[in-house]
Amino acid sequence: MTKGLTKRSEDYSRWYTDVIRDAELADYAPVKGCMIIRPYGYAIWESLRDALDAMIKETGHVNAYFPLLIPESLLKKEAEHVEGFSPECAVVTHGGGKELEEPLYIRPTSEAIICSTYAKWMNSWRDLPILVNQWANVVRWEMRTRLFLRTTEFLWQEGHTAHETEAEAREEVARMLEVYRRLAEDVLAMPVLKGIKSRSETFAGAVETWAIEAMMQDRRSLQAGTSHFLGQNFARAYGMQFQGRGGALELAWSTSWGVSTRLIGGVIMCHSDDLGLVLPPRVAPVQAVIVPIYHSDDDRAALVGAAKNLGDALRGAGVKVKVDDRDHLKPGAKFFEWEKKGVPVRIEIGPRDLAAGSAVLIRRDLGKAGKTSMGFDAIPREAPGLLAAIQKSLFDRALALREAATVEIDAYDAFRDRLNGELGFVRADWCGNAACEAKVKDETTATVRVIPADGQAKTGACVVCGAAANSRPVWARAY
Amino acid sequence: MTKGLTKRSEDYSRWYTDVIRDAELADYAPVKGCMIIRPYGYAIWESLRDALDAMIKETGHVNAYFPLLIPESLLKKEAEHVEGFSPECAVVTHGGGKELEEPLYIRPTSEAIICSTYAKWMNSWRDLPILVNQWANVVRWEMRTRLFLRTTEFLWQEGHTAHETEAEAREEVARMLEVYRRLAEDVLAMPVLKGIKSRSETFAGAVETWAIEAMMQDRRSLQAGTSHFLGQNFARAYGMQFQGRGGALELAWSTSWGVSTRLIGGVIMCHSDDLGLVLPPRVAPVQAVIVPIYHSDDDRAALVGAAKNLGDALRGAGVKVKVDDRDHLKPGAKFFEWEKKGVPVRIEIGPRDLAAGSAVLIRRDLGKAGKTSMGFDAIPREAPGLLAAIQKSLFDRALALREAATVEIDAYDAFRDRLNGELGFVRADWCGNAACEAKVKDETTATVRVIPADGQAKTGACVVCGAAANSRPVWARAY
Repeated sequence: MTKGLTKRSEDYSRWYTDVIRDAELADYAPVKGCMIIRPYGYAIWESLRDALDAMIKETGHVNAYFPLLIPESLLKKEAEHVEGFSPECAVVTHGGGKELEEPLYIRPTSEAIICSTYAKWMNSWRDLPILVNQWANVVRWEMRTRLFLRTTEFLWQEGHTAHETEAEAREEVARMLEVYRRLAEDVLAMPVLKGIKSRSETFAGAVETWAIEAMMQDRRSLQAGTSHFLGQNFARAYGMQFQGRGGALELAWSTSWGVSTRLIGGVIMCHSDDLGLVLPPRVAPVQAVIVPIYHSDDDRAALVGAAKNLGDALRGAGVKVKVDDRDHLKPGAKFFEWEKKGVPVRIEIGPRDLAAGSAVLIRRDLGKAGKTSMGFDAIPREAPGLLAAIQKSLFDRALALREAATVEIDAYDAFRDRLNGELGFVRADWCGNAACEAKVKDETTATVRVIPADGQAKTGACVVCGAAANSRPVWARAY
Repeated sequence: MTKGLTKRSEDYSRWYTDVIRDAELADYAPVKGCMIIRPYGYAIWESLRDALDAMIKETGHVNAYFPLLIPESLLKKEAEHVEGFSPECAVVTHGGGKELEEPLYIRPTSEAIICSTYAKWMNSWRDLPILVNQWANVVRWEMRTRLFLRTTEFLWQEGHTAHETEAEAREEVARMLEVYRRLAEDVLAMPVLKGIKSRSETFAGAVETWAIEAMMQDRRSLQAGTSHFLGQNFARAYGMQFQGRGGALELAWSTSWGVSTRLIGGVIMCHSDDLGLVLPPRVAPVQAVIVPIYHSDDDRAALVGAAKNLGDALRGAGVKVKVDDRDHLKPGAKFFEWEKKGVPVRIEIGPRDLAAGSAVLIRRDLGKAGKTSMGFDAIPREAPGLLAAIQKSLFDRALALREAATVEIDAYDAFRDRLNGELGFVRADWCGNAACEAKVKDETTATVRVIPADGQAKTGACVVCGAAANSRPVWARAY
């Protein structure tokens, strides 16, 4: 069945696809660019989603659900927005066996339908803020697709909020960007840079797009989540008006923010190795697998029994555990399978271990270097700490990689050569001019990924044109 | 803003729409027949979904996600299935600015895409059973729509399983029907009849459709969930084959089962009254609301403080509680609002209550008849029991209604007149012939809703034609 995993150093892109195939995370669907998220992949999404959903609710938001289909005329009300999105839309022209009077777009994002609804919900300033999120599928017709990272249909959450004042809306944009940072760093063990996007990478119709940006193991950049300050653009287009405290009609200030199944691609590329998937414990559907090792039917009952007891004890300690007592597979085949599936801890119990009242623990991230023996009693007590240590270790490793692969360059030739050579992040001053950004893109395919807080007030000389710079962005080639 | 609620006795259908509007559960969307599920309505869906998701997982299923878009050619592989569904499909003909080579159907249900995927997942009998569920949106072009009950797009879960043997598949169909009964009766307090559907009401492509059927307050029947035995029909159409224990290739046996946002319509129609929504505590987003009643700023601090303390204590007891300390609304307006939103228990604290260390509790289902005074200490202790009593009381009331509105009739004239007169369930023998069923439908608009277990072996005379009967179905007019 399996042809073996391509090595990262051989072909990173094939390695990525192999990891997904071998861990049974996803398959391509019969429709080009669409994806089937298999149960193991979906369980990762469930962990991630539940963690994020709790954070979204803690920050005062509620969930709702808006329709999949958007009338063409509604989408067209915000000029920049429709210009950005309509070329990548899927369009329904027939329903119930008849041609429709007006084509319907499958939502590529839901500002149009949601803002026009909020317009009806708001009468006075007392109705604000509106803080709503939805979990939904969206469709964007993509030419070049890649499982999880860029698919025609994907799952995401999109928050949409409306506020009385500009300051409140800007606070919201920053609050959700910070929620995304916590999700990425604390839950996915994926270090990110928070910052603002350049104009060319700003969401169609937004005033500003803020983002979290992560470095993958191949040193390419991945946009992992965005939080948009929409100003009053959508309020104007969709009639989000309310009676203000002074009695006059005012336009609302709005935001939107989203992360998607793309994050699963980020997790895979951030942590996995040449043996397959490596999962951070906080999103691992199985955090520990117990494999009893027996050579005869006599041994079997005792070893499977011990494995099940230990499994129950671990479950009681809050660990997501699986006891692999399948009879038709040898232990080695089981090890191999769970390794490819990225389970953080493997626990082996053989006859000698059983006699000694202990088991062998192997950390997925360290392999043989992370092998220890531990008494049955100690394991449930130590397991939560061990999982936390693995979580931290994955984060630290990714952070160290990013730091090692980030350089500061001030001269254009060196800047261009670096971006055309080794992958990685380059910090260099920029005048903010789109022409300079376009030149870099033409000559290197790299773009301004994000302007972090510490780069938003730099005033050196633009690395491209030498004019006064107003920022020091992170430049990189990206997914 | 509100025009007041229509009475059930005046116009049941308008009453239903009014309840939804006043409780802010849902709105119609710009696309005909589509629905916006507002936050309060969506929170009911979240309670229901989480309860069902847990039951689906307890019975050994895992979640996954399959694409929204299905190629026309794939849908056409099962002849009966496509004949049943294609007339009500929404069809995508353009994507990415171009006309597609092959039209894509938005899933009306996912047998086609899922069974063709399972075909790739199964090699040997060891790969079976495949027990997968998905939570998704589906689109069916409906002519006459009604919020929650029948909308063009709706949310649902659809389970799809593949088995080695017919017996296992049949067991699965029965297992999930029982899960649905538990969901309806234990979580939604909605009594249901379990049974098999007549051929004319069987899912397109299925061998048998089993269902739970509930009686609404207007005595109409509501199909609330279905579990289909698909035999080997879809296995044949989509190539679900595996190497059996004997070594030969065998066709799998499959099932599918689903419930949808329609259940929220059922909850509304089953329990609500002329004052608005009534929610069973197990799906109520807010189970108890605390309203402090003060007449001066001096009182305010003490009363709001007491309300918040009680709120914390109730939260500690596992109750979903809201303290309504809004200042710009009078207590009466708050009572009115929470009544319309169906919150099971309202707790009022006025200055005299505070002095006495107690509060007044009013049950939403009983109104003034359910008013008691209780000490602050006792409330968190008694609240879970009180909520359970309300849950049971709603179920009992609905069951009593169904029993009172179910009659047994053996003569055709009386049968027809009854079905044309009073709404309700009628039990009467049937020969199983589609012509007899069609005649009843023509003359009364009633149909065979379900054949319960106690009606699957009756052998009297068909109420229509007098021939030997093989079942005693429930006949009724339905939503």
